Amino acid sequence: MDEPVVLFANEAFYLAFAGRDYPAMDAIWSRRPSVTCIHPGWRALIGREAVMKSWRAILDSPDSPRIVCRNAVARVLGDVAYVICCEIISNGVFAATNVFIREDGGWKLIHHQAGASPLPLSETGSLRDQLQ
Amino acid sequence: MDEPVVLFANEAFYLAFAGRDYPAMDAIWSRRPSVTCIHPGWRALIGREAVMKSWRAILDSPDSPRIVCRNAVARVLGDVAYVICCEIISNGVFAATNVFIREDGGWKLIHHQAGASPLPLSETGSLRDQLQ
Repeated sequence: MDEPVVLFANEAFYLAFAGRDYPAMDAIWSRRPSVTCIHPGWRALIGREAVMKSWRAILDSPDSPRIVCRNAVARVLGDVAYVICCEIISNGVFAATNVFIREDGGWKLIHHQAGASPLPLSETGSLRDQLQ
Repeated sequence: MDEPVVLFANEAFYLAFAGRDYPAMDAIWSRRPSVTCIHPGWRALIGREAVMKSWRAILDSPDSPRIVCRNAVARVLGDVAYVICCEIISNGVFAATNVFIREDGGWKLIHHQAGASPLPLSETGSLRDQLQ
């Protein structure tokens, strides 16, 4: 019954993103120095310092996009889990992979990748309404 | 010392892709029905049937791109591992996440995501030369 807990951790990630809440984002990521992140159109970031620096810049930016997560599906594989989901952002729709690890009694993010994804315009429109 | 073995499995994935070798691609993917895949610009594919159908279409297509994998970095987390790497394709450069699971004594792919990624033009050029 770990899937709902992993999905909750995934939702917390998007709430921190949407709320531009850097302390929450920092707490969501694993303390491991080896975490990784691939933002849409960025090169891969390797290491916690580089990853958190990117989040600081994104969350501090006045252009930081509004974001909603939809259609999340979790796969739990022992002490590792991943979620694939759809990110509805004001400037586009993205597909994402979020990899979590069991750490300190919870699920912590160790890798995130998001990239452009098509969605039928009708569906995009109704989902974008939720950003308003 | 699992990292080299995971990187070898990752390399086998790209060799199957480059060689348009569907049986090899089929063998590389886990037998689990729950595997997932996000091709660049596609919506997420969920389930082995949908994922392998996509690979059949990609590998059978005369437009199937040539591909080389570079800068692969592996993270092993017990019986799960993931690789992030750069895909140099004739029509662009992509960043990828490949998630593997220990299965039948080897490492099998359970999730793949690739998305557009920038690379300095000079580096892209020299890497694209390797596709010739």
